[in-house]
Amino acid sequence: MHFASDNTAPVPPQVLEALIEANHGYAMPYGTELAMTEVRDQLRQIFEAPEAEIYLVATGTAANALALACLCPPWATIYCHPEAHIEEDECAAPEFYTGGAKLTLVEGDHGKIAPGALEQALAFTGRAGVHNVQKGALSLTNTTEAGTVYTPGEVATLIGIAHAHGLPVHMDGARFANALVTAGCTPAELTWKAGVDVLCLGGTKNGLMGVEAVILFDPARAWEFELRRKRGGHLFSKHRYLSAQMAAWLNDDLWLKLAERANTAARRLSDGIAALPGAHLVHPTQANSVFAAWPREGHRRAQEAGAQYYLWPMDQSLEGPGDAPLSARLVCSWCTTEEDVDSFLALISG
Amino acid sequence: MHFASDNTAPVPPQVLEALIEANHGYAMPYGTELAMTEVRDQLRQIFEAPEAEIYLVATGTAANALALACLCPPWATIYCHPEAHIEEDECAAPEFYTGGAKLTLVEGDHGKIAPGALEQALAFTGRAGVHNVQKGALSLTNTTEAGTVYTPGEVATLIGIAHAHGLPVHMDGARFANALVTAGCTPAELTWKAGVDVLCLGGTKNGLMGVEAVILFDPARAWEFELRRKRGGHLFSKHRYLSAQMAAWLNDDLWLKLAERANTAARRLSDGIAALPGAHLVHPTQANSVFAAWPREGHRRAQEAGAQYYLWPMDQSLEGPGDAPLSARLVCSWCTTEEDVDSFLALISG
Amino acid sequence: MHFASDNTAPVPPQVLEALIEANHGYAMPYGTELAMTEVRDQLRQIFEAPEAEIYLVATGTAANALALACLCPPWATIYCHPEAHIEEDECAAPEFYTGGAKLTLVEGDHGKIAPGALEQALAFTGRAGVHNVQKGALSLTNTTEAGTVYTPGEVATLIGIAHAHGLPVHMDGARFANALVTAGCTPAELTWKAGVDVLCLGGTKNGLMGVEAVILFDPARAWEFELRRKRGGHLFSKHRYLSAQMAAWLNDDLWLKLAERANTAARRLSDGIAALPGAHLVHPTQANSVFAAWPREGHRRAQEAGAQYYLWPMDQSLEGPGDAPLSARLVCSWCTTEEDVDSFLALISG
Amino acid sequence: MHFASDNTAPVPPQVLEALIEANHGYAMPYGTELAMTEVRDQLRQIFEAPEAEIYLVATGTAANALALACLCPPWATIYCHPEAHIEEDECAAPEFYTGGAKLTLVEGDHGKIAPGALEQALAFTGRAGVHNVQKGALSLTNTTEAGTVYTPGEVATLIGIAHAHGLPVHMDGARFANALVTAGCTPAELTWKAGVDVLCLGGTKNGLMGVEAVILFDPARAWEFELRRKRGGHLFSKHRYLSAQMAAWLNDDLWLKLAERANTAARRLSDGIAALPGAHLVHPTQANSVFAAWPREGHRRAQEAGAQYYLWPMDQSLEGPGDAPLSARLVCSWCTTEEDVDSFLALISG
Repeated sequence: MHFASDNTAPVPPQVLEALIEANHGYAMPYGTELAMTEVRDQLRQIFEAPEAEIYLVATGTAANALALACLCPPWATIYCHPEAHIEEDECAAPEFYTGGAKLTLVEGDHGKIAPGALEQALAFTGRAGVHNVQKGALSLTNTTEAGTVYTPGEVATLIGIAHAHGLPVHMDGARFANALVTAGCTPAELTWKAGVDVLCLGGTKNGLMGVEAVILFDPARAWEFELRRKRGGHLFSKHRYLSAQMAAWLNDDLWLKLAERANTAARRLSDGIAALPGAHLVHPTQANSVFAAWPREGHRRAQEAGAQYYLWPMDQSLEGPGDAPLSARLVCSWCTTEEDVDSFLALISG
Repeated sequence: MHFASDNTAPVPPQVLEALIEANHGYAMPYGTELAMTEVRDQLRQIFEAPEAEIYLVATGTAANALALACLCPPWATIYCHPEAHIEEDECAAPEFYTGGAKLTLVEGDHGKIAPGALEQALAFTGRAGVHNVQKGALSLTNTTEAGTVYTPGEVATLIGIAHAHGLPVHMDGARFANALVTAGCTPAELTWKAGVDVLCLGGTKNGLMGVEAVILFDPARAWEFELRRKRGGHLFSKHRYLSAQMAAWLNDDLWLKLAERANTAARRLSDGIAALPGAHLVHPTQANSVFAAWPREGHRRAQEAGAQYYLWPMDQSLEGPGDAPLSARLVCSWCTTEEDVDSFLALISG
Repeated sequence: MHFASDNTAPVPPQVLEALIEANHGYAMPYGTELAMTEVRDQLRQIFEAPEAEIYLVATGTAANALALACLCPPWATIYCHPEAHIEEDECAAPEFYTGGAKLTLVEGDHGKIAPGALEQALAFTGRAGVHNVQKGALSLTNTTEAGTVYTPGEVATLIGIAHAHGLPVHMDGARFANALVTAGCTPAELTWKAGVDVLCLGGTKNGLMGVEAVILFDPARAWEFELRRKRGGHLFSKHRYLSAQMAAWLNDDLWLKLAERANTAARRLSDGIAALPGAHLVHPTQANSVFAAWPREGHRRAQEAGAQYYLWPMDQSLEGPGDAPLSARLVCSWCTTEEDVDSFLALISG
Repeated sequence: MHFASDNTAPVPPQVLEALIEANHGYAMPYGTELAMTEVRDQLRQIFEAPEAEIYLVATGTAANALALACLCPPWATIYCHPEAHIEEDECAAPEFYTGGAKLTLVEGDHGKIAPGALEQALAFTGRAGVHNVQKGALSLTNTTEAGTVYTPGEVATLIGIAHAHGLPVHMDGARFANALVTAGCTPAELTWKAGVDVLCLGGTKNGLMGVEAVILFDPARAWEFELRRKRGGHLFSKHRYLSAQMAAWLNDDLWLKLAERANTAARRLSDGIAALPGAHLVHPTQANSVFAAWPREGHRRAQEAGAQYYLWPMDQSLEGPGDAPLSARLVCSWCTTEEDVDSFLALISG
């Protein structure tokens, strides 16, 4: 019963087999190997973007920070949700890679930026000219940190506002596959057709060992990205081990199947909790994470039985009298089973 | 006949098996997994350094730049050889990670810093007080970029000079294992006993997919390193896939055996070339790289037969009349065979 | 009737005379001139801080950013009020000089950080270890951007909270003299005795051409400050023209007399407005700025007559029906006269 | 007898009078004052560059570093002479402002970059693609650090090489006026007509208190420059005190007259020394600095008499037997008199 994060899961056999396969003989380094050409072709086809330039890195923080540094100059600000990974979980990597840009936090329910709040933030930025930071870039996260999914229409609305102010747009897609299977649209519709300039397509949380694809729909900044990647220490010499994983993940829609499994498990978990007496969902369950609250006793039983997950926010306590509901985050992965879910539900329902 | 680099080789079966083994079930993320504890214990024992703090990253550039950023403030300079990887091959990653420090190039034959030149450079630095950059850190590469090996005594001499000026010392050990088997001393003797503060122990060029250990012999800067690593995007969530590789590599002296094989192949290749008419060594062959010159005709035959290696320096041409010797770099890896070497020698000897 | 800012005023005759006096003959450069020794002695005596190290720069942004860079590492955050100059008016200079630190905005009425909000912000920071930015420094502005003044007790309370978390403290004293004459305490009581580590003592807004003193009460970071200042391009070769101005400003309490004049003018203006029908103060007037609202008609008359000041917030409009009060910021300087104030009051009262 | 530097001299009466004049009444801040319009018009006319954008800062280091940051991205390198101020005397300010670019040192006699050496350095840069820093910008210093002057033709030759590689060009003109009166050409001929993109026109070493004009002949990067200047803390609120000085300095060719006086004094000094037995010039004297060597006894007499100048290089010693010549740097300023020169010559000739 591991619901702590999707980064504690193993990788599926197809990925391991691809690594074994890739390990034969010599291969050219630094992304010049054949497998990278395959990955590039796959992603261009999947995203209907024949001009896109595509690069692999090994962590989501690297992908986001490098992409943002290409979009936002040091004297500008990046608009993001207060719970965005780039604000909360990257130890100021965007500030480091951009050379000292700011992040402007734009509120909205359930992890999504509210259009009105974005308008307001943009109206406020740079009103005193050179004394203020300038408008830099918009960063959207899909799936959001609250486990919700922006629809193509919602993405397009926010980007419409950003474009009216001349802003480029970054999408943190650490859980993009999970969003996509929920949105039920094409990859293109959820990204460049809605105005996204750069997508960080996460593989690590969805079945890879540590591989993320950065997709520059506009190739104009490709060479800059390559230089920033190298300079950040994110260009792999034995790059074949990244591209082989990514190719296997894209093959036969494996990435979507893995995401579908995680989402399905989360839905089952969410439905089960929502039906418990004294329980409720904190955010709608739209991808592979469940944010829900249930009575303290249920938490005690789960944790005694070794279930792994985080109280969310983290500063709640299992100790104390009464049975008020405590809220938690439960993340399902491609390898979460129905049994995992049902055992957990049995535990917390008492 | 691949002698282009040691980063084009595959990984040995033990490493692949360790990955397969590591892929069972859930594992804690970010270096808190059990395998990392094992790696830490192994390296502390191997280096006789029970206090050392140890971190894994995936590229040598990341290892070097993060380590140097912990040692050298933005207003100081790092002393290194003009051919050092940090100067030549990292697209100013040290400058980026330090926040704008300088590199001061210190000459010396065969890739090694000359003690007199280091003395001179140090005497020159900071003579105008606040107007100049200050003395920052010494960076040594062992095995050097010229394929030569500093002995423990040579390391200690250079570090003695550095310490007299209060400088901390970084060792770029991308090919440390190759140096160690040549030096015939203990890992401790070649590092902290000779004064090294931080070693970047390279696994990637010697049999891993992309894993480097940063060993902080003085743990005082460990927390800073952790923050810089995260902020640089170099902390892996599914960290088990790094630590499992590293553990397998250290087990049963695999890392030394792999290096020994590469060095042996290089020695055979070096001896063979040196015996050819019209050929000579450019640098003494002390590890797994051979820098040698031989007549142009031999190069032509080798390249027509598909042998892969670089003319070194790169701006020489195979075209042209006459048969003057051209110099080249040939790098052997753990999987270079006697047959590879002998076939190559046969080709170039005509 | 210039109330736009205190940076549009000329300098008093004493400062000009000091410049003329300083212009005789040759002088040593870079702060080694005699006048800087005098300044250092003056400030050490005034602040009862014989160990303090003191440096001059020419702009408040430079003073703040350099000081903060000495206190806060790149992976940490600076706590400040949302209206603080370092957040609102310096185009991310602190982010630039620190190498990418963050600013955490801590609310509070009338430009002052609320202790409870500071506690809360500190409790939130760094709860996820290496994934978050760390606690960096507290920055207080006195006189605040709202024209209010922290008492020594209020300063000590906030710094007590900061110190409990191990934070160093910066004070932006662009209008420190104005705060001091209001607080009626000693300079030491309002700074180091209350826990301030570094004071940026502003001269420019209070009678100098462009001179700010950075006072490091703890000299441990003095050399770092000197290097950062030089590296930032803020070390003046003909430094005598800064030190001569500063010395004249400190002589015979000129700095306090100038601040007293500005504060007195602001009080007269504030009292006058507060007494108008339909008018009210937005913030209590405690130094040389008045934040007040009065009917639109009064604004129209004032601006037609050429009075210079800003509607505050700036996005209000003089146009439109009705006579609802509009709020404004009025800043008095050392050379604001009673006539200026009374003419203005006459205009807006109609 | 002050020959230590041109930054120890006072300012001429015209500059002081301009300051006094500028001190009347209120003035708009931040360069929006009338005097700045005057300066802009003057410089556009003088340089025959009606499109140029012009900004003032207070130090030469700020001018250079800000200008270079606009020309050179963080992953590139700036070509300059090893003795250039940006390399030797700015504590890595260019590295700081560019965000970690490198400086590539290009040799040449008498402080001037040799065209062949520049060709060679450019051919070497970036040959390994993304692994290397890229070609960034060329920086020329005129007057050079060796007191020599590039002719328009020499400037054009070097810039021709730079342009063939797509490089923009910065000119450090800390002593541009001294170069100009020697070159005997128009300001345009020595700058944009020869290909210079940005000139840092130094006032501080030639009669101002601390004012430098940055002239962007191509205004495309003007807004970026403004943001970088503010963010660097180099935008003055009471900007009128900079522009008033600069306007007075440009009026009636004062800047050229001051430079002419300094150059004339240097020529007299140089001729005098060259005629001494046992003496010789180290560099040809072409502007206001003299680099010459004369017997140790002469140095002893001069220094006993209180003459101020630097042995150059600084690590020579007055002590010791014999009378071998020691080399020195002697800098004349606008206020060096014939008497100063003759007294000094009398001293050293014994």
